[in-house]
Amino acid sequence: MGQLPYGADLHGELTKIVRRENIHLGRISALGATTHARVAYYDQNTRTYNPIEFPGGMEILNIHGNVSMRDGEPFVHVHILLGDAGGKIFGGHVLPGTILYACEVFIEEFEGQVLERQQEKKTGLHLWKTGYLS
Amino acid sequence: MGQLPYGADLHGELTKIVRRENIHLGRISALGATTHARVAYYDQNTRTYNPIEFPGGMEILNIHGNVSMRDGEPFVHVHILLGDAGGKIFGGHVLPGTILYACEVFIEEFEGQVLERQQEKKTGLHLWKTGYLS
Amino acid sequence: MGQLPYGADLHGELTKIVRRENIHLGRISALGATTHARVAYYDQNTRTYNPIEFPGGMEILNIHGNVSMRDGEPFVHVHILLGDAGGKIFGGHVLPGTILYACEVFIEEFEGQVLERQQEKKTGLHLWKTGYLS
Repeated sequence: MGQLPYGADLHGELTKIVRRENIHLGRISALGATTHARVAYYDQNTRTYNPIEFPGGMEILNIHGNVSMRDGEPFVHVHILLGDAGGKIFGGHVLPGTILYACEVFIEEFEGQVLERQQEKKTGLHLWKTGYLS
Repeated sequence: MGQLPYGADLHGELTKIVRRENIHLGRISALGATTHARVAYYDQNTRTYNPIEFPGGMEILNIHGNVSMRDGEPFVHVHILLGDAGGKIFGGHVLPGTILYACEVFIEEFEGQVLERQQEKKTGLHLWKTGYLS
Repeated sequence: MGQLPYGADLHGELTKIVRRENIHLGRISALGATTHARVAYYDQNTRTYNPIEFPGGMEILNIHGNVSMRDGEPFVHVHILLGDAGGKIFGGHVLPGTILYACEVFIEEFEGQVLERQQEKKTGLHLWKTGYLS
């Protein structure tokens, strides 16, 4: 539990921390504010991540995500919910380019079976090779 | 920590897992994407759950919920936040009929006092008989 | 894990619980419904919390927050996401005046370095003096 610095890139900062701490399996949750946000919507038909930008100050109402392995390195997958001055909410899959005003974050490390991402044919997504709960 | 399969019904799949694992008390959090979503808004005046449908691919930005007992069986209560292609957000109380494109989920099991749901007069909701924190 | 009573003020009730239980460091997550909500958007230019009111019944789709110390006492910082009858989502930084219809909540207590808030020059926010993760 701690905070990320003003001006940091959310995705880059989380990636730096989980690689430095060598976290192979984990969960991330957070709140805070952005000065600029860049997220993606994954189009299931075209199988592309379409970027969406939110310039200016927004509240971070929730960040939820996980840590697993991709290409042999700890990899961060986080989704974000952002609020504007009128209390309206926007969000998506966090991309590099989301810049923090403030961020209070929980990073939990888990023991157990490591989950590795690889691209899957059915969805085009980099899902886990194993780890199906049912 | 793991994933749910493509095409699964979110509420049905979570219910199947917590009953198979005999989880009486727990927490659920997740992200992913849907191909179709079906949620409810509870109308406090009419005391009815009004369903709302979101056809087509949406990001799951957050799922948060809990596991407790209802009618002698493990019972899943989850709320969902969904994002469209423009980054606009929708959501509600998850109903059967929410179909997954992908879902990365945490299910935590807790020890301690079991919480049992029963319908309560003041709200019309199936709340816990005990477990008031204050 | 438990519930908060009908008619309680969300922020006041959480504050009462963490002070009674003497929780110095922790995490809060929840779902439920409100009869009235009062949240804030922090304007980064004017450095003011601007209140926004949501009268009438709304679903609480997610509450995420933390517990740390401010002015020598346990202090609750929570953000909320609310859904209306059409499944549209609103939210912000929870202020006193958010009144509950129902609320199912997890409060986790952590051991470790205590985090203390104090106003910071760069942002105008009461952030932690320490606890930078990077």
